[in-house]
Amino acid sequence: MKKINKLSNWSFWLLVFISINSWSQIQRVEPPFWYAGMNNPELQILFYGENIAENEVSVSNGISIKSVQKTENPNYIFVTIDTKDVAPQEMLFSFSKNKKVTFTKKYALKQRRENSASRQSYDSSDLIYLLMPDRFANGNSKNDNHKAMLEKANRDNPSSRHGGDIEGVIRNLDYIQELGATALWATPLCEDNDSQGSYHGYAQSDVYRIDPRYGTNEEYLKLSSELHKRKMKLIMDYVTNHWGMEHWMMKDLPTYDWIHQFPGYAQTNYRMTTQFDPNASKKDAKLCADGWFVKSMPDLNQSNPLVLNYLIQNAIWWIEYANLDGFRVDTYSYNDKEGIAKWTKAITDEYPNFNIVGEVWMQDQAQMAYWQKDSKIGAIQNYNSNLPSVMDFTLMDALTVAFNENQSDWDKGLFRIYNNFTNDFLYPNTNNLLTFFENHDTNRFNELYENDFKKYQMAMSILATVRGIPQLYYGSEIGMAGNKKDGDGNIRQDFPGGWDGDVNNAFTKAGRTAQQQQFFDFTSKLFQWRKTSEAVHFGKMTHYVPENNVYVYFRFTDSKTVMVVVNNNLISSEINPIRFQDNIKDFKTGKDVFSGKQMNLENNIVVEGQSVLVMELE
Amino acid sequence: MKKINKLSNWSFWLLVFISINSWSQIQRVEPPFWYAGMNNPELQILFYGENIAENEVSVSNGISIKSVQKTENPNYIFVTIDTKDVAPQEMLFSFSKNKKVTFTKKYALKQRRENSASRQSYDSSDLIYLLMPDRFANGNSKNDNHKAMLEKANRDNPSSRHGGDIEGVIRNLDYIQELGATALWATPLCEDNDSQGSYHGYAQSDVYRIDPRYGTNEEYLKLSSELHKRKMKLIMDYVTNHWGMEHWMMKDLPTYDWIHQFPGYAQTNYRMTTQFDPNASKKDAKLCADGWFVKSMPDLNQSNPLVLNYLIQNAIWWIEYANLDGFRVDTYSYNDKEGIAKWTKAITDEYPNFNIVGEVWMQDQAQMAYWQKDSKIGAIQNYNSNLPSVMDFTLMDALTVAFNENQSDWDKGLFRIYNNFTNDFLYPNTNNLLTFFENHDTNRFNELYENDFKKYQMAMSILATVRGIPQLYYGSEIGMAGNKKDGDGNIRQDFPGGWDGDVNNAFTKAGRTAQQQQFFDFTSKLFQWRKTSEAVHFGKMTHYVPENNVYVYFRFTDSKTVMVVVNNNLISSEINPIRFQDNIKDFKTGKDVFSGKQMNLENNIVVEGQSVLVMELE
Repeated sequence: MKKINKLSNWSFWLLVFISINSWSQIQRVEPPFWYAGMNNPELQILFYGENIAENEVSVSNGISIKSVQKTENPNYIFVTIDTKDVAPQEMLFSFSKNKKVTFTKKYALKQRRENSASRQSYDSSDLIYLLMPDRFANGNSKNDNHKAMLEKANRDNPSSRHGGDIEGVIRNLDYIQELGATALWATPLCEDNDSQGSYHGYAQSDVYRIDPRYGTNEEYLKLSSELHKRKMKLIMDYVTNHWGMEHWMMKDLPTYDWIHQFPGYAQTNYRMTTQFDPNASKKDAKLCADGWFVKSMPDLNQSNPLVLNYLIQNAIWWIEYANLDGFRVDTYSYNDKEGIAKWTKAITDEYPNFNIVGEVWMQDQAQMAYWQKDSKIGAIQNYNSNLPSVMDFTLMDALTVAFNENQSDWDKGLFRIYNNFTNDFLYPNTNNLLTFFENHDTNRFNELYENDFKKYQMAMSILATVRGIPQLYYGSEIGMAGNKKDGDGNIRQDFPGGWDGDVNNAFTKAGRTAQQQQFFDFTSKLFQWRKTSEAVHFGKMTHYVPENNVYVYFRFTDSKTVMVVVNNNLISSEINPIRFQDNIKDFKTGKDVFSGKQMNLENNIVVEGQSVLVMELE
Repeated sequence: MKKINKLSNWSFWLLVFISINSWSQIQRVEPPFWYAGMNNPELQILFYGENIAENEVSVSNGISIKSVQKTENPNYIFVTIDTKDVAPQEMLFSFSKNKKVTFTKKYALKQRRENSASRQSYDSSDLIYLLMPDRFANGNSKNDNHKAMLEKANRDNPSSRHGGDIEGVIRNLDYIQELGATALWATPLCEDNDSQGSYHGYAQSDVYRIDPRYGTNEEYLKLSSELHKRKMKLIMDYVTNHWGMEHWMMKDLPTYDWIHQFPGYAQTNYRMTTQFDPNASKKDAKLCADGWFVKSMPDLNQSNPLVLNYLIQNAIWWIEYANLDGFRVDTYSYNDKEGIAKWTKAITDEYPNFNIVGEVWMQDQAQMAYWQKDSKIGAIQNYNSNLPSVMDFTLMDALTVAFNENQSDWDKGLFRIYNNFTNDFLYPNTNNLLTFFENHDTNRFNELYENDFKKYQMAMSILATVRGIPQLYYGSEIGMAGNKKDGDGNIRQDFPGGWDGDVNNAFTKAGRTAQQQQFFDFTSKLFQWRKTSEAVHFGKMTHYVPENNVYVYFRFTDSKTVMVVVNNNLISSEINPIRFQDNIKDFKTGKDVFSGKQMNLENNIVVEGQSVLVMELE
């Protein structure tokens, strides 16, 4: 109140009047604020209010308005200003009718963090821990429900909200860190006000607001800070392709073509191949990209520049606001192909080191490689997605089958894994592939292999030592299983110990079962070691055709070499190092990174059945 | 004797002396003769004889010798002459010691056929009939055995020679033509003197000579002429990768590195992916390309220029001699990668329109596309194979499974076929893919589908209407079956009627069983129609995502459109033409190319269960 006291009576009452007026006239301003000194100086501000388009707009402080766009809906104005060389400040937008100001709106241009543009990101030296915040830990039971949010918590329903939240994640960062993870990918945290299944967060209703059942925007910022204190990274799960039906804009669309309409809903055919297939019918290609992923998720039209700008700015806003270290982008290849490439370029133009991994879920390496930045496959059609990273789904396909095939067939067993890497030349950057054996949309690895610890060890050891960025889905590390056939809830079960009263608390050693401890110990040891291995992070790879169901590969830099021997036989195998002399070179011994035991590389190497021997050569 | 009479006594006796001398000194000259006016004027002639390298070489008629290469084996001289602007003629090579001619050898440079260099070749307007000459028809039982040839005919042994020959093929060209085939690919006919399994012809012992058990070089030329009389084409099955152990040169190698030695035999690992895999160990890559296909087939070293030239010239020699219309090249991707690209370029530099299809047997479109001329996939590694055509093995994989999966799973049934074409953009030229559902190395289609006529009709109709060059393996058209598990002989059985005394003669309508006639009638009708359809030969393709287990695609030019509806359901299906309006355009009716029945395209189209409706739109 200090400042108000200084004002004259007249100006005080004027301000009160304006404020009241702006409250009534402006219901939304997005982005709610912005940052000075961005690479792209243009800022498109959406003002939403009843019949707001009847007004003319001006702005204070000599700031230049580049365009004012009005749409067929009079409740929207999109004002684009030029922020070039504009210092952090608060400006005032004035809305006028007949040259008389009817109301105003303050707008802040904030100071960016130091070196914001050159921020680093996640890469192949990281282990990404993927969790679903609703299912990880309930740190604050008071926010389980919210009066304005339609779906209420019900832990008994696998498809309902269970109450997990940001506070629960923050409380358990020590656990995640102990595991060896260095980056966190949480499935979306923005408000999803769907009346059912809102826990997954992919049907967002407000993309500038953390869902109150997860916490607040400030708590998300706190999560980021807490991670950074640990030198860990925060990856936001961003959704460009669609929003939820409960998004506030869906109630009053800015333009008819803000979303794809047929009119209204039509379901995508999910045939992503139509996006490059030269034989595809136009109808199929359009239905794939423009059709809705599911009925509750209206498909955004990124070919509309207003939409595209909105999505670009929202993404940048979160990076700046929450000090993000990277994105995962949902359903990347379902987006408008040209639009999403522009979106991705806009982000990486602002943050040249920022990593973005897109969900491109295909069964063919050439098709996945198509979508990676600077792809030669994409270039066949003059397409460049600009997307730095894609997901190695075919490796997942291989890892989830290979260990049940412990015979040396032509293309089965270990050959599935070996074969995956033979096509590495199709990718512009294999080290920027996300590698994993499960995620929140797939069967759980431990379900497929019935919690066979040996198979878990083999697959994890491979993920930890091949090229790419390993990703671990919460709970794998304690043997959690789940079958997609029984519904998504089954592969997204609550982490034991995340809720008050959980009898089994897997977050602590004391609370773990023997099996959980066995899985955890191994995983933690593996990824703590991985943190130290530059050869694994950035080294080259040489692999050898599997023989007798044993697969040998090397990761190496000029000075360091890691040798990996995968034995998929039920019984132990011996390999003769002579075959691998080109990689063993002058090294004399191999140190088993688990046991610390030294092996003489002049003798045959014995590898236990169904195990992976990881050795640092010395 | 006329000319000799004109000679003086002195010169007569001198000639006799020289002839005797050259007989004793020169055992082989290869190529045995050559042609004037080739694009590449250099000709490398191999002279073989005991200690022949002790001689100096000169040539008559002012012809220039560009190089004389002697190797570590004194029994060889490679003489390279320049034939630029040299008219057809007979020249005389003189071999001298101490400046005295010890013997001479005549060498002919022949006249080429008119327009030899610009000869046309096979393309997507053709149907290629693939047969194994030993198993097709025995036209001349007198040549079943030959005193100098180790293996003798024994029809009771599936792995032995059965006596089929060129004369048998010539006698049945009417049959092949009636079927609608326009090109003939016979597995190799050159001499293969292996003591076992020589019938397949891939272990050749003399690459300038037709195996006498098949006939003579002149008979091969006759086959070519007979085909050309019918406006049909002859495709030679060429083997660059290896010869047989009985090849005359194997007994006395020109150079140690004429073949790949480890020393001697080592078996390839068959892992062709090592040829582009950036992670492959050098050892594996070398073993794949340099290892022998089987122990009886020494692996030729095309990185030795003498070998490469030898193989190039041998291939060109056959094109000129037998007036060939194309090649199929065996085990293409097992060759020295750079060498085979040079070989292929040399052939197509001589004959710019000459088509060559390489056997690149892989399970992945990007990997196969790598090997096609001007591939963008190959270009990732700066590789251009120069090979105009590759084989669409993934289509074969799809066709041999799809019709046993008559449900609309995500990637099964008709989706296998649909999906194959979604990657067409990876190939530089999809119309130059060889399309087939079986060949002499695979299970027989009619075995896999247990002679189900409906499934045969579906697959054949697809082969006849999709892009590419269809290839039919002898006997499919009469329902021949065969299981590779029972040995190669089982998938290479004798064509019924090809041998005197065969009770069942499928070459004639009267001799066919009802089932054979059913298969033959359908196949003949289909491919006779295909001959007339430009839209199928060279048209574009548009296909639609299969729905309800029905797959619809179009082939079209500016004026002609063919619509194909594949119904993989057991029962009949109806499709609504509205979905396909972009392709149906203003056409009003579709004429069923089998029944001639007109369908009104404004009504739903009914397609019988397990059938393919092929319609010309009008």
